[in-house]
Amino acid sequence: MAPNDGTQLDPWAGSYAARAVGLVSSEVRALFSVASRPDVVNLGGGSPYVSALPLDDIAELCARLVRERGAEALQYGTGQGTEELREQISLVMEREGIVAHPDDLVVTTGSQQALDLVSKVFLDPGDVVVAEGPSYVGALGTFTSYQADVVHVEMDDDGLIPEQLEETLRRLAVERRRPKLLYLIPNFQNPSGVTLSGPRRIQILEIARRHKLLVIEDNPYGLISFDSEPLPALRSHDEDGVIYLGSFSKTLASGLRVGWAAAPPAIREKLVSASESTVLSPSMFNQLVVSTYLANNDWDGQIKVFRELYRERRDALLQALADFVPQARWTRPAGGFFVWMTLPTGMNSKLMLPRAVSERVAYTPGTGFFADGRGSGHLRLAYSGPTPDRIREGVRRLATVIDAEQEMLTTFTGEVPIIAG
Amino acid sequence: MAPNDGTQLDPWAGSYAARAVGLVSSEVRALFSVASRPDVVNLGGGSPYVSALPLDDIAELCARLVRERGAEALQYGTGQGTEELREQISLVMEREGIVAHPDDLVVTTGSQQALDLVSKVFLDPGDVVVAEGPSYVGALGTFTSYQADVVHVEMDDDGLIPEQLEETLRRLAVERRRPKLLYLIPNFQNPSGVTLSGPRRIQILEIARRHKLLVIEDNPYGLISFDSEPLPALRSHDEDGVIYLGSFSKTLASGLRVGWAAAPPAIREKLVSASESTVLSPSMFNQLVVSTYLANNDWDGQIKVFRELYRERRDALLQALADFVPQARWTRPAGGFFVWMTLPTGMNSKLMLPRAVSERVAYTPGTGFFADGRGSGHLRLAYSGPTPDRIREGVRRLATVIDAEQEMLTTFTGEVPIIAG
Repeated sequence: MAPNDGTQLDPWAGSYAARAVGLVSSEVRALFSVASRPDVVNLGGGSPYVSALPLDDIAELCARLVRERGAEALQYGTGQGTEELREQISLVMEREGIVAHPDDLVVTTGSQQALDLVSKVFLDPGDVVVAEGPSYVGALGTFTSYQADVVHVEMDDDGLIPEQLEETLRRLAVERRRPKLLYLIPNFQNPSGVTLSGPRRIQILEIARRHKLLVIEDNPYGLISFDSEPLPALRSHDEDGVIYLGSFSKTLASGLRVGWAAAPPAIREKLVSASESTVLSPSMFNQLVVSTYLANNDWDGQIKVFRELYRERRDALLQALADFVPQARWTRPAGGFFVWMTLPTGMNSKLMLPRAVSERVAYTPGTGFFADGRGSGHLRLAYSGPTPDRIREGVRRLATVIDAEQEMLTTFTGEVPIIAG
Repeated sequence: MAPNDGTQLDPWAGSYAARAVGLVSSEVRALFSVASRPDVVNLGGGSPYVSALPLDDIAELCARLVRERGAEALQYGTGQGTEELREQISLVMEREGIVAHPDDLVVTTGSQQALDLVSKVFLDPGDVVVAEGPSYVGALGTFTSYQADVVHVEMDDDGLIPEQLEETLRRLAVERRRPKLLYLIPNFQNPSGVTLSGPRRIQILEIARRHKLLVIEDNPYGLISFDSEPLPALRSHDEDGVIYLGSFSKTLASGLRVGWAAAPPAIREKLVSASESTVLSPSMFNQLVVSTYLANNDWDGQIKVFRELYRERRDALLQALADFVPQARWTRPAGGFFVWMTLPTGMNSKLMLPRAVSERVAYTPGTGFFADGRGSGHLRLAYSGPTPDRIREGVRRLATVIDAEQEMLTTFTGEVPIIAG
């Protein structure tokens, strides 16, 4: 009898597409299930704090919408999304200096779907996507599901380093590998919390243009800024070379799954066709909920509420880190949901996670944010979900785990771990 | 200067993935825009008549949902969908004889997304999908967007002909082409309106098993039956060899985009991962709307309302066809939304469409429902949207177009067109 290696249990194991080999459960998904226990302080998932929304207003809005426009809200729509919402999105993008005609927009089922559509339209197997290192785990998963290779470029506190990008592109040219897309999260990046500086935006666009590299600007957090007005978007400098991805998941409600892409006309046309073959049309109901909310409710006031709320949580996290884990390093985000932590040398965030969960605190190990196996010395802390007190308690718990880990390392190696350079 | 052939206007024309070449505007989309004028009787689009829904009840339900479970409804969910909804879907599928555990299910953004996920997981470029001829235009678009080839198998009034399927598979084996999926819409098929008979379901499953062909059973219309209870689903006979796709688009509201797939465990796991990389999670809000509706409202009563409504419209269409277009042939659906019409020989439904729209009636030309260019002698009539009076008026207008067309053909050829065999 042939040995049973598990795959034999699946009678269709020989039928999958080559790309489906890369389809495995994400680390974030595995985390979600443990971290959802109420006794665990969840610094892992980057869920927005939707309880801060005016639920009574939204309840009333939904009821009115179904009564007054039910036949429209409950029906199929077009693949591109409603003109009403696209006009409103044009105005939203003006806040970051973008001039986009509603025709340039495609409404998507969350900006995750926009990532999928861009990948579907551009990525052949073996194509290269250049991305920040670290980068958003969900984007890396999408790119690799199309059998593309992700090549990371180093960041510092001002975001992606232009010289490193130039160097990477030179190396890829020598290796005869084709970079198709440059994927960037310029504001309060997931997972690093870092913002790409104004001057670097210009430099990077110039490099991308020279190398005929299409830029994907993913900006779900841009309006969640704590200290200043948002920087002009990359797309505001270059309409032909940038696909901009936006989302209402962080400024309104992730449960509605409403995002968008702004793209040059020929690309936009392909994105619409790709979306039709993927979901037919985005939910009319959810589009109308967003449109009605934007037209009638105080969205600016709500964004201010979110900014204050998340700023307070960020401050709590940074203070707790300084108080409890002084031996580690971390970033200082000016907006968004995330802090990126560098552990003392020799420590492994993935191996440490089960112990952290036993201590009732969860985080996301750094490895998920690299496509090349790096990241074990890092972890992502999300401050968007828990209250400031819970965040402080979570960091206290995390500190006991790190301290114990360090003690064990010292016992085994006889050396005091130091911070990596 | 090089001639400008149009593609030069797109600076990214050289960057698209090979699969994106197949991404073009669908014929149905082009149709939607003309046929939406209120003076046109739209027999083209298969939109459900959502105005028959109890809008006040749904309005109230949405408001209560946001007030009582807002923090859940407006938040991200899991890739697989809520357990609550998957349990309810299990019960829905029992109506067609399917025993499925909630774990076997993946909730999707409409069943179109389930088609996309199945394609993503199974189809390599050059793989063959065997489908009824004609078949659902949206499925053909999805299959070809993954660079698969669709091979059609003939139908008659009892659905796909098993002997023709066997013959097709034999031919593909000789040609060394690999059929991966058998795509079927067994009930009130789109576009033909035909239902696959009980005995043929068993025969086809046996052939598929023997050829290791995975069956995709797409069943959006099953519960919209006019004359009898639904036949047992293909999946009720074979859990390991069938992926079943269901939808609330026709029994509740297409604007919510809630569908599902029931699949063998190993496949289901891959579909969930593929869905996460496509939309992260289906809309929690819309899942909870459907769950709350199913739990608290008279869904069975609503399905009866829809059955009566669509039966009346089907009857109106069939009567009008008999009265006004006796020289054509058409199918007699026992449920669903569609009648498939065969024009007198020599007539071309695609070329005739602009004249029909001038006469203020729209239909869908048959060519969209074949992947191989056939179908010009046919057209699809959807009776789901217009009232019986409007349907009769639409067929009257269509008859004048067909009569004029026939007269022109007779003038040019000197022959009286006859029905194709």
